[in-house]
Amino acid sequence: MRISKLFTKTRREVPADEVARNSQLLIRAGFLHKEMAGVYAFLPLGLRVLENVKQIIRQEMNALGGQEVAMTVLQPKELFEKTDRWDDKKVDNWFKTKLVNGSELGMGLTHEEPIVDMLADNISSYKDLPVLVYQIQTKFRNEMRAQAGLLRGREFMMKDMYSFARNQREHEEIYERTADAYNRIFEQLGIGNITYRTYADGGIFTSRFSDEFQMISKIGEDTIFVDKERNIAINQEVINDNRLSDKNIDISKLEKHKAIEVGNIFSLESKYTDALGVYYTDEDGSQQKIIAGCYGIGVSRLVGALAEHFADDKGLIWPENIAPAKIYLISVGNISSVISQADLLYNRLTNSGIQVLYDDRQQRPGEKFADADLMGIPFRIVVSERTIQSGKYELKKRTDKESIYLDIDEILTTLS
Amino acid sequence: MRISKLFTKTRREVPADEVARNSQLLIRAGFLHKEMAGVYAFLPLGLRVLENVKQIIRQEMNALGGQEVAMTVLQPKELFEKTDRWDDKKVDNWFKTKLVNGSELGMGLTHEEPIVDMLADNISSYKDLPVLVYQIQTKFRNEMRAQAGLLRGREFMMKDMYSFARNQREHEEIYERTADAYNRIFEQLGIGNITYRTYADGGIFTSRFSDEFQMISKIGEDTIFVDKERNIAINQEVINDNRLSDKNIDISKLEKHKAIEVGNIFSLESKYTDALGVYYTDEDGSQQKIIAGCYGIGVSRLVGALAEHFADDKGLIWPENIAPAKIYLISVGNISSVISQADLLYNRLTNSGIQVLYDDRQQRPGEKFADADLMGIPFRIVVSERTIQSGKYELKKRTDKESIYLDIDEILTTLS
Repeated sequence: MRISKLFTKTRREVPADEVARNSQLLIRAGFLHKEMAGVYAFLPLGLRVLENVKQIIRQEMNALGGQEVAMTVLQPKELFEKTDRWDDKKVDNWFKTKLVNGSELGMGLTHEEPIVDMLADNISSYKDLPVLVYQIQTKFRNEMRAQAGLLRGREFMMKDMYSFARNQREHEEIYERTADAYNRIFEQLGIGNITYRTYADGGIFTSRFSDEFQMISKIGEDTIFVDKERNIAINQEVINDNRLSDKNIDISKLEKHKAIEVGNIFSLESKYTDALGVYYTDEDGSQQKIIAGCYGIGVSRLVGALAEHFADDKGLIWPENIAPAKIYLISVGNISSVISQADLLYNRLTNSGIQVLYDDRQQRPGEKFADADLMGIPFRIVVSERTIQSGKYELKKRTDKESIYLDIDEILTTLS
Repeated sequence: MRISKLFTKTRREVPADEVARNSQLLIRAGFLHKEMAGVYAFLPLGLRVLENVKQIIRQEMNALGGQEVAMTVLQPKELFEKTDRWDDKKVDNWFKTKLVNGSELGMGLTHEEPIVDMLADNISSYKDLPVLVYQIQTKFRNEMRAQAGLLRGREFMMKDMYSFARNQREHEEIYERTADAYNRIFEQLGIGNITYRTYADGGIFTSRFSDEFQMISKIGEDTIFVDKERNIAINQEVINDNRLSDKNIDISKLEKHKAIEVGNIFSLESKYTDALGVYYTDEDGSQQKIIAGCYGIGVSRLVGALAEHFADDKGLIWPENIAPAKIYLISVGNISSVISQADLLYNRLTNSGIQVLYDDRQQRPGEKFADADLMGIPFRIVVSERTIQSGKYELKKRTDKESIYLDIDEILTTLS
């Protein structure tokens, strides 16, 4: 895409009402627009990043056998009354609304109830199980405070998967396979080495066990103790002597870190299936409980966490597989030979299926370089009078200090 | 995908609380789940159809130069007060909610205000225009009645594009190019021959002119008069002598039809940009009004309209480019040679990039045939003892009465 056609503008000044680095950078780079605290619109480049993250998650969910659906935002009160999660005293972050006739509705903050209710029409026999259903959809939570940019949204994008198994053993197998898939997702996103499966409490969601996936970050709201050798961690909140001995953890050997919760997985036992009266019939005709799990990833929160982590004082630094483009192409000056060379390179790269942001504006070179850095595009290519004379283009990685000089075929070989 | 793994089930009986044929069929085929009147979840096969329709629309919007964004559902009251569209007496189908601190919020029913407000940060000069921005996003309208399945949703999927031009001439050029893109979209969806650009009133949205795209349908809520020769129509609501003479229409020569509004395009003049104080600076430094347009397509409504139109007494009949799969593959009987042949064909087709629903269940053949018809998959292939003996598979189009018999290579050639 040509930057001259892109409607978003970068800005040098930090937005006055943003305190979080992720939203400061994403707004300055033109990726986000703030609607209100905790509510952000995704502009074209931000939407590309969001979609790239979604796609990595979707592929792993599909590989698990997950079937994608899209449940609704509007939720009937009656469904959540059955599980005692309607009352604001029980769940304190509902957004609620009303039909014209006065009936109260909730705006989906999680979807255990509607998913189980929907499955009641589709599951009856042991042959119908196990089932894994997921969605990547907008959720709403009425947070008292929302100052952390994409890290704590009132409206946010979430992947939530739900599993339904015939028994505890089958459930645990799915639970562990999903934990492995989560590790693969965070690896693909470039944060595998700082993200730990973390033993945690399930809060309101479960009576039994749960794991969080915590990404080490100075600005994290959680505190975890990391066992690097075993590649696991424990949330400070749940540490007590029993648990430490249960899990065979020697706390003195662990590293203490602040961390951002980027995913979580819960065992729900049969809490929701029982409450909504959904059972299955076994081989011998007897009625059995369905053992459920739920598996969340905060997709927009992840975009925020990645923006926090992959950044320097010049701006964002996207990993290649989630960047909104691979190359930021800059033409220096208005000489026609430079423009026609840059146009040519833009066409060659684009035709090779490489995504390019082509800065064809009549801006000063310094501004173009600053924007390339701010937007965090992995590679920068410069076309100037000098590069034309040498027959080589200047290629620099966002993370490198030095440029290298390559001809057009070498560039295509390097970047394809 | 193997039907034995698909969690959704088809049903023979019509859902008791559904009066519309589109949602009756889509629920029976396992494409939709009803959350409440006018609020439907998309199950795996329904979601595929929805995504296919989105993709056709997205490509045309991108070809126009539209830049995709994702605005938010939650909307601040203040923004809509500026255009006098907050008061329920002015706009009577808001869903509203509240922050914990009591501030009122609206749930997006249209996005002129937030889009214009967001552009205010990005547009200042004539060089920044024209701009086309679009999104494909969930909208909410608090309809008094919602009995028409996907045709009138309280929560629904909409594509809305907004254009911003330097002057009326530039606006009209965009408006006409978009109307042409709409015609191409409806052609690709197989309803080009029954969908007419229709002269209409703009209701609350505009003071000037607008067009609807009306698809002829017995269950349509609108009445239009079609000029087949000129490939246009006029909505009955706006017919008066002046207009007829203005548009040079002889009503006696037109065909009267019921129709479903599947799209609309509006000229907004500078109503919203003025109200929100967004202007641009011209070449000579003077401040100028920005002329806007908005362009809607009810994406989930379209899925409903297509389900209504492409159906017979056996079920749905999807056009190939939006069907959830191209082939419904049926194995007849449990003989191992049949199963291994069907497995082989499934793998060959899938490896060729063809989407297949493989009915590998131990159901009676009659049930499998009925499900293939109900789901409306374009091609049905049967593998049975008889087909194995003949070395040819039975291929039938959903719309044909007769089967043809082809070997595996002929099938691949025919369907690739």
